[in-house]
Amino acid sequence: MPFTSVKVIAFDADDTLWANEIFFREAEDKFCSLLEDYLPQHTVNRELLKTEINNMGLYGYGIKAFMLSMIETAIRITEHKVPDTVIEEIIKIGKEMLQKPVNLLPGVEETLKTLNGSYRLVMATKGDLLDQERKLKKSGLEKHFHHIEIMTEKKEPDYRKLISHLDVEPSEFLMVGNSIKSDILPVLKVGGFAIHIPYHVTWEHEKLDLEIEDEKFEQLENLSAILSWLK
Amino acid sequence: MPFTSVKVIAFDADDTLWANEIFFREAEDKFCSLLEDYLPQHTVNRELLKTEINNMGLYGYGIKAFMLSMIETAIRITEHKVPDTVIEEIIKIGKEMLQKPVNLLPGVEETLKTLNGSYRLVMATKGDLLDQERKLKKSGLEKHFHHIEIMTEKKEPDYRKLISHLDVEPSEFLMVGNSIKSDILPVLKVGGFAIHIPYHVTWEHEKLDLEIEDEKFEQLENLSAILSWLK
Repeated sequence: MPFTSVKVIAFDADDTLWANEIFFREAEDKFCSLLEDYLPQHTVNRELLKTEINNMGLYGYGIKAFMLSMIETAIRITEHKVPDTVIEEIIKIGKEMLQKPVNLLPGVEETLKTLNGSYRLVMATKGDLLDQERKLKKSGLEKHFHHIEIMTEKKEPDYRKLISHLDVEPSEFLMVGNSIKSDILPVLKVGGFAIHIPYHVTWEHEKLDLEIEDEKFEQLENLSAILSWLK
Repeated sequence: MPFTSVKVIAFDADDTLWANEIFFREAEDKFCSLLEDYLPQHTVNRELLKTEINNMGLYGYGIKAFMLSMIETAIRITEHKVPDTVIEEIIKIGKEMLQKPVNLLPGVEETLKTLNGSYRLVMATKGDLLDQERKLKKSGLEKHFHHIEIMTEKKEPDYRKLISHLDVEPSEFLMVGNSIKSDILPVLKVGGFAIHIPYHVTWEHEKLDLEIEDEKFEQLENLSAILSWLK
């Protein structure tokens, strides 16, 4: 089978190794409740997403960006009538997110430990530098990784750079992640392998429905399934 | 002279390669003016610094962290009476900071170009990932660097990690920067060389007045002076 040339396995972190999106969902719910006197919750949610996408280029990904977009949305949709206590509450929601525990997904620790002998393991994640380092530390997974790459984007040029930095050929590189858009498609495009492990919650902005037909692609149900797949 | 063993030169970026602190100073001034109806400007400034230091562990460095701390300070010192328009103004100040031009300090381009043949050059900077990458791109300096390291902290363990990652001995590593606290002391502690190039504006939190007596240390007036120093 074609995956035999793989030497390096890169893992996405959020919602591949540990739960993450769920905390954003919880925060969004709290935010929408805070503003329900002004607008219906689903409208608030849509407005927030709009703000986030508008700010993406300037702020990038992560909790601080999310906090700033919540504040901006609150001011806009209340037409400058949002009480300071609500903004204070938004800051509190964000600070709580920054202190959440790191809950590993099932089988993660064991899978990394087993693969570590036979492959060079890398963590390749998007997001806020400090926050991703915090989660990595809390996760206790650092010891399994040869290299940690925290990226501002996960597009084709970013993967090309990473693969070249790791000093391997694209055909020796396998990416494992939960986002078709960020972890799978760009990697297949640059000639690497990709395994998709869907997560039950996906951020609207990362959603993408399509069938992938590629011998360098596989979809598995959970991380542990990689062990038997690569055997 | 002792600097002859140096193989890698790492440069701090903000206020070593390009102006940065000056934009924070400008933003602080605007922030203090916004709130002068509530408190004298120097008190606002002191309160802001207090908030920033309190939030450092959670937010880290960078403009987004600074924006969130300004908002929090505005709410606190007005006792929840800050108008939404002021918060909106704070967000605007921050977004403007994120789009500032990158002004190289005198002699930077030429110095890097000249050193590039004889040394491996590295950029080692603290701060927000996306924002530092933005500045690097705008600076046009990327081509001179063998490696870019964006760090959450610049303490002894961080430098040990960087030096080991670069595959050199501490005695082959020279750090050049404007902050005694972040660029000089920890590097000398781990056995590396350090050159201090003072910048006329230093953030309160990075200030440190002391005399350094170390044969691995030198203070120079500007970046170009490195060329004759290392000759």
